[in-house]
Amino acid sequence: MAEPKENPLMEKIVSLCKRRGFIFQSSEIYGGINGFWDYGPLGAELKRNVKELWWRGMTQQREDVVGLEASIIMHPKIWEASGHTSTFSDPMVDCLGCKRRFRADQIEPRSGLVFQYQGAADESSGKFCKEYFSALVQTGKPPESAHKLANQFYQSRGMVSPKLADISPPEKVENTARYCNECGGLLTPPKQFNLMFKTYVGPVEDPDSVAYLRPETAQAIFAQFKTVFEVSRQKTPFGICQIGKAFRNEINPRNFTFRSREFEQMELEFFIRPDEAIDAISGRVATAAEIGNRKSEIGNSDWGWEAWHKYWVEERIRWYESIGLPRASLEEYWQKKDELAHYARATVDILYKFPFGTQELEGIAARGDFDLSQHQRFSGKPMSVFDDELKAAWVKLDEAKKKELGQRYHDARQNYLTQTGVPAEEAARQAREDAAGLARGNYIPHVIEPSAGVDRLILALICHAYSEDQAPDEKGKLETRVVMRFHPRVAPIKAAVFPLLKNRPELVQKAKQVRELLRPHMTVFYDETGAIGRRYRRQDEAGTPFGVTIDFDTLGEKGPELKDTVTVRDRDSMKQERVRIDVLLALLLEKIR
Amino acid sequence: MAEPKENPLMEKIVSLCKRRGFIFQSSEIYGGINGFWDYGPLGAELKRNVKELWWRGMTQQREDVVGLEASIIMHPKIWEASGHTSTFSDPMVDCLGCKRRFRADQIEPRSGLVFQYQGAADESSGKFCKEYFSALVQTGKPPESAHKLANQFYQSRGMVSPKLADISPPEKVENTARYCNECGGLLTPPKQFNLMFKTYVGPVEDPDSVAYLRPETAQAIFAQFKTVFEVSRQKTPFGICQIGKAFRNEINPRNFTFRSREFEQMELEFFIRPDEAIDAISGRVATAAEIGNRKSEIGNSDWGWEAWHKYWVEERIRWYESIGLPRASLEEYWQKKDELAHYARATVDILYKFPFGTQELEGIAARGDFDLSQHQRFSGKPMSVFDDELKAAWVKLDEAKKKELGQRYHDARQNYLTQTGVPAEEAARQAREDAAGLARGNYIPHVIEPSAGVDRLILALICHAYSEDQAPDEKGKLETRVVMRFHPRVAPIKAAVFPLLKNRPELVQKAKQVRELLRPHMTVFYDETGAIGRRYRRQDEAGTPFGVTIDFDTLGEKGPELKDTVTVRDRDSMKQERVRIDVLLALLLEKIR
Repeated sequence: MAEPKENPLMEKIVSLCKRRGFIFQSSEIYGGINGFWDYGPLGAELKRNVKELWWRGMTQQREDVVGLEASIIMHPKIWEASGHTSTFSDPMVDCLGCKRRFRADQIEPRSGLVFQYQGAADESSGKFCKEYFSALVQTGKPPESAHKLANQFYQSRGMVSPKLADISPPEKVENTARYCNECGGLLTPPKQFNLMFKTYVGPVEDPDSVAYLRPETAQAIFAQFKTVFEVSRQKTPFGICQIGKAFRNEINPRNFTFRSREFEQMELEFFIRPDEAIDAISGRVATAAEIGNRKSEIGNSDWGWEAWHKYWVEERIRWYESIGLPRASLEEYWQKKDELAHYARATVDILYKFPFGTQELEGIAARGDFDLSQHQRFSGKPMSVFDDELKAAWVKLDEAKKKELGQRYHDARQNYLTQTGVPAEEAARQAREDAAGLARGNYIPHVIEPSAGVDRLILALICHAYSEDQAPDEKGKLETRVVMRFHPRVAPIKAAVFPLLKNRPELVQKAKQVRELLRPHMTVFYDETGAIGRRYRRQDEAGTPFGVTIDFDTLGEKGPELKDTVTVRDRDSMKQERVRIDVLLALLLEKIR
Repeated sequence: MAEPKENPLMEKIVSLCKRRGFIFQSSEIYGGINGFWDYGPLGAELKRNVKELWWRGMTQQREDVVGLEASIIMHPKIWEASGHTSTFSDPMVDCLGCKRRFRADQIEPRSGLVFQYQGAADESSGKFCKEYFSALVQTGKPPESAHKLANQFYQSRGMVSPKLADISPPEKVENTARYCNECGGLLTPPKQFNLMFKTYVGPVEDPDSVAYLRPETAQAIFAQFKTVFEVSRQKTPFGICQIGKAFRNEINPRNFTFRSREFEQMELEFFIRPDEAIDAISGRVATAAEIGNRKSEIGNSDWGWEAWHKYWVEERIRWYESIGLPRASLEEYWQKKDELAHYARATVDILYKFPFGTQELEGIAARGDFDLSQHQRFSGKPMSVFDDELKAAWVKLDEAKKKELGQRYHDARQNYLTQTGVPAEEAARQAREDAAGLARGNYIPHVIEPSAGVDRLILALICHAYSEDQAPDEKGKLETRVVMRFHPRVAPIKAAVFPLLKNRPELVQKAKQVRELLRPHMTVFYDETGAIGRRYRRQDEAGTPFGVTIDFDTLGEKGPELKDTVTVRDRDSMKQERVRIDVLLALLLEKIR
């Protein structure tokens, strides 16, 4: 929580989130718990809207994606197959002086004098041993702190500290990361610390009952791929999407909700034919460059992974635009070859320009057939699909083409197998078998994975919506107005309904009628307390796009032509227009959809 | 998973759930993980619809409830305040023979012969000790198994087993639950086993970093009560609702998804004035009986906890009716005085008649001010609210009334404080202070808690929807039809669109137009493969309420009067009616809302 305070804009945003009920610290009355956040009434609605738009966009509005909702705790073998058990970890160091633990890559190099100590066991104890300790004193600081630390170190071990006179002169050291940034004590060598939260399932805490909170939602999709594929009567290309919580025991949660320990993901795994199958069926494979302006049309049969990857990058950016993050607020970052995971063919990060820096909202990775292959190996269950179009096309290929495609597929499979540690002979046999399978119409689908973080997207929407302008107060004096310019699609409250005065029953009654008219179709907030200007301001801060006011004109007090009309105030322009109540619902629905 | 197989109807339901993609076992390719389930494409949609209807019903359609979405991992002190750390546990016994662990209350009493053994340390080891063991041999079984067990027991301890000749004659025992149901070995005395899943937050696994996966969503609402109350500018009575996952390390998950280890809850905490405040303001407190037929109107100012409790029981039952569980399928169970938790004033369980028994869907508890009081005590943060109406009313009371209400409130507070272990003197002082606070308009709100399980509701909807009837196949022969009679509101797919034949481009094109017409407004499934009768059957199993068929009449081939009409088939009656495409959307929307 240090960073937002160092950034005046983030400080304002964090404060508004708390004041207006977007986001609170979890367990605040107990002092909070680092890396966990709660969404208040407005935040919960905002988040629901965003998730609903993503889900409906993926499933209802497409033919080729279905949904899944898997459990957070899964069989631990899944994390062996995915690699999380062995590699999802951060290097950690412990300070031998103050006992604090740090991420090794977050130790800032320091320069100064290093004192070396050599303590020994108290000889009267009958033991004989020595132990070394050292501490860094930054340039210009007195050395006593180091001696004190060494004393503590030996005392805590029941050893005798060296006498001051016996300490060798310090050594000058430049930019070392071997010492604690807090106390200067020696750090242990880095040790890997797994970021998965561990628990035990069942009554006995033993190694057989260890399970993990999922660190990502993706693996459940891979593990259930075959079952979902079969029940949904789909063919490649087709996708499975999921929204759900994931957990990472981050050493250093930071930037408000951006990097937290509990978060939500929206992930799609889009399964496609391998390029060799595309080539066999279509006689060619379209490249990303080729699809050019067609990129957000649905793929043709000649689309290989490059085209599909580009399609999804574009598709996701358009989605962000549709919920109010313009293209100019985003950045597309194509990972460089040496940044890619060994199995990834390409990864694009979609970044948003947060007040604390430009950071990732979503990664869109072309992951080949790595994931399904891993689960096939670890579970012993086949992950391949049968593709009758491929089978029919294959027999019509000439021998040279068969050989070329078979060889390419064989090499890719062999490469995967040997890279993941399968012995050479077994890998060669399996790759030959896989290539023969391809000729019969069987393959393990490849995958394009658009993976977005819900909480960081909510934070981006909040940051983007936050703005200040000048507006006149009741007395016409200009004052600063805080307004959350959410896109009406995601705004937590769509319309606020105000009777001009609360002590006029006709106004109140009419306003309540308008509320009832709108309520079945959208979130409505009814407010009758305070001056109308203050009520507008409160809704500006909540990001409510439309304010509907029932006044004396509505009652027909100024003549029949304005009877049963209301004013609709636009949050952003603050302009008001008069609208007939009987067209109000249709007008608002059109704007919020 | 044993039980459903013993129940033919449940067996069919479980099988349909898997076959059609409602519910799968989690991590199935790895042999599954007991107590965890995944929702497939249809199940995920069904669950989303139910949650959305609950949420919108609670928030959007009411003035007096707001939403919250809190983290699953919270500060561990929350579970001390709620009592879960100390009392949320099951009594467990370990078998000294086969080492298995059981819930003590699930040991079936058995009768038979008990052999007593006395083994000793090998004297050559220089140690001297004895240890007793015993085992039950069920009536009619040979005694060798018991002797073998005793041998194993002593061997595993490096002890010498007694000689056969030294074993005393067995003792006859009736209905004892002290021996293992699996092997007959002696069980340890029951030990409490906490049902919360434990994990560690941060890099160090020590007692300070222990945290739990929440076993219920309710406590987050209590912990954030004051913050939400303040930001939402509400007054009592008002509620906070939440939907989210919770986790319980059940010893014996069972009945398909009914009792699982990971599940979802929909909980409302509805905060009301204490009866003494109601009395002070309204001069009386309406009883539950009194509200009678008014019970689902929104409360009057004279509603005390009894009236509100009854209101919510009725409100919740009406909600179940609205999503397709008729009142006759439910049971209202009013817990008896001796079944109530010590703080609960009344609890009503809403039960559903599952094929495996009548079981709880939801509990509606009147919990007094217990929860907020606990969090006030444990956090040191005030949980009381100021009520200006109460303050204004109080000063107008006569002295006798003030004394009477103050005394009643004082006694209730003192009772809570002493029952939760506050020393008598401190409790007396605090209760006097609380009573004085009431006179100034301050109190800790009381709460009514309707708490529903999402997964068991989904299971109830699936069980209720499942039905078989007779329908003619293509050749007119009657065959068994499986049909899921979901209420259209919750049905995963609202409408299926079929071109009569897939090899007639005009039909396919028109059908796709109809699909595009409906898709922005509802989930639509387009299917062109197979005979139309088979396509209907597939949708019957998915529970799709409406089948829209585009045939030659649609194209106008049988004359202009039927052009641009489609048939709409009703899933339940299988009746078809012709509908003009231009009114189709409105017709369907009306039925699914």
